[in-house]
Amino acid sequence: MDRRKALKAFAGGATAMGVAGALGMSSMKANASETNPSKRPEIKLNKKGKVHHDPLPYVPLDPDAVADRAYKNKLIGDCMYGVFASIVEELAEKVGGPYLTYPTTVTRYGKGGVMGWGTTCGTVNGAAMAAYLVSDKPGPIVDEVINYFQYAELPDYRPASAIMDITPSVGDSTLCHVSVARWCEASGHKAFSKERTQRCAHLAASMTRKLVMALNAQHENSFKAMYPIPQEVKDCRSCHDKGGELEDTRGKMNCMTCHEKHEV
Amino acid sequence: MDRRKALKAFAGGATAMGVAGALGMSSMKANASETNPSKRPEIKLNKKGKVHHDPLPYVPLDPDAVADRAYKNKLIGDCMYGVFASIVEELAEKVGGPYLTYPTTVTRYGKGGVMGWGTTCGTVNGAAMAAYLVSDKPGPIVDEVINYFQYAELPDYRPASAIMDITPSVGDSTLCHVSVARWCEASGHKAFSKERTQRCAHLAASMTRKLVMALNAQHENSFKAMYPIPQEVKDCRSCHDKGGELEDTRGKMNCMTCHEKHEV
Repeated sequence: MDRRKALKAFAGGATAMGVAGALGMSSMKANASETNPSKRPEIKLNKKGKVHHDPLPYVPLDPDAVADRAYKNKLIGDCMYGVFASIVEELAEKVGGPYLTYPTTVTRYGKGGVMGWGTTCGTVNGAAMAAYLVSDKPGPIVDEVINYFQYAELPDYRPASAIMDITPSVGDSTLCHVSVARWCEASGHKAFSKERTQRCAHLAASMTRKLVMALNAQHENSFKAMYPIPQEVKDCRSCHDKGGELEDTRGKMNCMTCHEKHEV
Repeated sequence: MDRRKALKAFAGGATAMGVAGALGMSSMKANASETNPSKRPEIKLNKKGKVHHDPLPYVPLDPDAVADRAYKNKLIGDCMYGVFASIVEELAEKVGGPYLTYPTTVTRYGKGGVMGWGTTCGTVNGAAMAAYLVSDKPGPIVDEVINYFQYAELPDYRPASAIMDITPSVGDSTLCHVSVARWCEASGHKAFSKERTQRCAHLAASMTRKLVMALNAQHENSFKAMYPIPQEVKDCRSCHDKGGELEDTRGKMNCMTCHEKHEV
């Protein structure tokens, strides 16, 4: 590997990811970090003055294969890592280039709903981050996968190397602590049992499989949401979200988990 | 830059971050990705069989300077990016090496509580990810910063380039949609107003400043939590969390936002 190839791989590893994404290495011209290591390259902005969204290349993946990898990765790096690293690793095998060196272990922070805090489930957080990394239109993918997380009976896929059957349950929310509570209730197992660890590994597999199916469909221009935002959430949003009379909050979470319906 | 230096910079860019973190490039021996681009390097595991936590080097930063950067970055890359990219950029200037090329723009996915979903606030998500990236003991840092987010009147710092004053409010939760609702109530402004955009940029600055102060203190072995978990949350956890009689969920979020106290 000569200098040109090494630099090309290096730049490839950072394409579209800001810090070095604006190195403009494809033209191989001298850049700030080469001539002055203390200066950061410029971030590219779009017409709205926001960071330019420039996803990495995606190719269709085998949903079951990536799910099986997510099951194993969850057990060594926890839930967010389970989803995110598996997408990156599979694309490293199929695409190579930037994925061969893309950092993944930092996503371990998402475990247990962000460092054990029980807020957004790591499989949701990891799926959203992965969708943003590889899709040029991540919004509909993220909506689909999170609504699946909230409303489907999960896990709905048994990983090839599974060691037990898992009772499915409905997450009811984007949140780790709600999803775990619902599963403890459905299964009769405790929140720190080995069964719950296995359940979350199966969940990482199911979420990864769903994400890959959605990404594959979008890649083939055949994506259609199977889990649209429910009417009752739309009703709430019509007053409380953007453009509503109150416009006093925002979001797409299942309102009914914590709030009661009320007359307007 | 010759091949050796290029590869060294390349490996430095990935140190401790899994995918290429296990390349073992410091010894400059041949590695899988060099000899076979389709094979990923091994991830290092610790004694528990989990991915080895190997943070990047940290040096004390100027809390106000990083906060001022976070304000600006929030406005071009949204809330999670505002916090995360600012820590990485400052460390790129002070430490260089891996930070010069560390990908940051993917963290734009955290905007509006994960792609507009209103779940975990992007400043919380970005602060936790940054803490995990640079601290060898990120847990206490994340606890401190998230409890500050939940219980302090924020924003509590005016960025150098601020264009307006912002009414402070208490987040009450880790969640974007709750924090936004509380602020809309306190300020009288709407959720998609220019004032709210500015408020979230001020919030990104305050969170970044708090994170840097906590990281600096930990680096100097003088860290002490100013926002410990409140007694009422501890009371709930004593039954519902790990080791409790019920052990039917997990987490450290403010329970009282959505649940009522009850007799036991």
